[in-house]
Amino acid sequence: MCVLGLGLIGGSIMRAAKGAGREVFGYNRSVEGAQGARSAGFDASTELSETLSRAAEAQALIVLAVPMPALPSMLDHIRESAPDCPLTDVTSVKGAVLDEVCKAGLLQRFVGGHPMTGTAHSGWSAGHGGLFTRAPWVLSVDDHVDPRVWTLAMNLALDCGAVVVPARSDEHDAAAAAISHLPHLLAEALAVIAGEVPLAFALAAGSFRDATRVAGTAPDLVRAMCEANSGQLLPAADRVIELLNRARDSLASNNSVAELVNAGHAARKRYESFPRSDIVTVTIGAEDWREQLAAAGRAGGVIRSALPTLDSPQ
Amino acid sequence: MCVLGLGLIGGSIMRAAKGAGREVFGYNRSVEGAQGARSAGFDASTELSETLSRAAEAQALIVLAVPMPALPSMLDHIRESAPDCPLTDVTSVKGAVLDEVCKAGLLQRFVGGHPMTGTAHSGWSAGHGGLFTRAPWVLSVDDHVDPRVWTLAMNLALDCGAVVVPARSDEHDAAAAAISHLPHLLAEALAVIAGEVPLAFALAAGSFRDATRVAGTAPDLVRAMCEANSGQLLPAADRVIELLNRARDSLASNNSVAELVNAGHAARKRYESFPRSDIVTVTIGAEDWREQLAAAGRAGGVIRSALPTLDSPQ
Repeated sequence: MCVLGLGLIGGSIMRAAKGAGREVFGYNRSVEGAQGARSAGFDASTELSETLSRAAEAQALIVLAVPMPALPSMLDHIRESAPDCPLTDVTSVKGAVLDEVCKAGLLQRFVGGHPMTGTAHSGWSAGHGGLFTRAPWVLSVDDHVDPRVWTLAMNLALDCGAVVVPARSDEHDAAAAAISHLPHLLAEALAVIAGEVPLAFALAAGSFRDATRVAGTAPDLVRAMCEANSGQLLPAADRVIELLNRARDSLASNNSVAELVNAGHAARKRYESFPRSDIVTVTIGAEDWREQLAAAGRAGGVIRSALPTLDSPQ
Repeated sequence: MCVLGLGLIGGSIMRAAKGAGREVFGYNRSVEGAQGARSAGFDASTELSETLSRAAEAQALIVLAVPMPALPSMLDHIRESAPDCPLTDVTSVKGAVLDEVCKAGLLQRFVGGHPMTGTAHSGWSAGHGGLFTRAPWVLSVDDHVDPRVWTLAMNLALDCGAVVVPARSDEHDAAAAAISHLPHLLAEALAVIAGEVPLAFALAAGSFRDATRVAGTAPDLVRAMCEANSGQLLPAADRVIELLNRARDSLASNNSVAELVNAGHAARKRYESFPRSDIVTVTIGAEDWREQLAAAGRAGGVIRSALPTLDSPQ
């Protein structure tokens, strides 16, 4: 298999996959990252064409681990040099990637992925082979998805120690807007408001520190996530504005925030008792397998060991 | 001194003050709480009139540690039986308490207080003598405040191991709206929205759990805080709605959230480097002492050991 981009995620995949006994080679644009990988005993190059020719020859699974802005030109190179290789990615927004893959004409070989892990640091040196241990790794089950490519991506995620959450790209992005991108915007707004109130920083303690923690993330990273997912983030932002407007009106006219507080508490309790289960009964490639996996993922199911495929012994 | 209400905060004050060598007696409405205190060797009663007569006789400092709804009738009893005792409280909203104290005609003997600590639990059994160790304990420096009562309240807070933050009641409440009450509303809204998105709970991990943690607080407690501070919470809610509206419009028309994200990140960085200092140069009772303390608290100053008073040896 072939990893393009050896930063935090790509570099950790290279380590974890090799640790699981796979043959892995990779490419990194900067000499520093490739050099770091090589001195740690990995097969890494700064020559993109050479790396892609090698991938094409071996029919290797290609993992796109480059930042979003680098994706279109990388996909052009792949279409030139390795158009038949199975393809997956690790980007946090799935719809925008799907659009680019589609434009590049590579949709039939592609399964979107998103390992939900990370640290505050980046680059080859920040990665490690245990980064994905027990982390959820989303794999897309969109209508176009090929069962053989899906199986390859699933096995990679499992080899890296992750649990696989099957999901449609649009549902992933709507969920990411609700649980990650909107919380970022709220944390930024909260930090701004506290900064405007003379005594606020002086009195702020643990709960404010937690509530604004993600406002400490580099603005470029926050913008990249939010702006690449604007289609899903806009309705989430509209909904939070609607809920807050209703609560402030109720506070102003009836001195009550009961409706929002009761609904929020009930939702948090549902989240705390949300059932987790193992997906074991779906056969990859069988009729409606994508719909079955999407439904199971939505219900809290995860894949912890490889599911059977139609053309494998059951 | 006399503690009225032996729940988490009142019960912990009783323990900490006795631990510091003070003579303390207290009242609790429920037999259970009073019994708990007595079996631990404390002087606790369920007889309010008796307790107040004793406080009046000893000219004891009275600490109001009853829930907000019990406050008006408690203040009536105090006016009846112990109108000359110095008085402080431990309630999280200061303006509303000030109004009640004013109505009861006890303003001249009163200094508002708010020890900024707590746990998820409540009642006598949840308390302990170390609850206030190094915690900020706000003491009001409103225009009416008497230097002798302020000194008594300061010494109590310091004896309990807290650091004293001097603040005006209105500024305290504006800060509490920004750093506590508004974050509660945002957490509730976030939990509601995630609960409406099919895949959100399935993918939610650490950052969502942190961002909605306070939505797990009992709705009655959240409502009590927010609704008692509506005068300060409403402008904070309006401001967050304004910031979010502007960000969503910018995202919709320019696909950019740069303005909010840059401002939020800058504010969070200012918070992380907010200077803390010790207040040592103010003399309680000297000219402008209240204004000096309010300014010092606003700038991040705290009192760690007793300040001199005009009538004490310097």
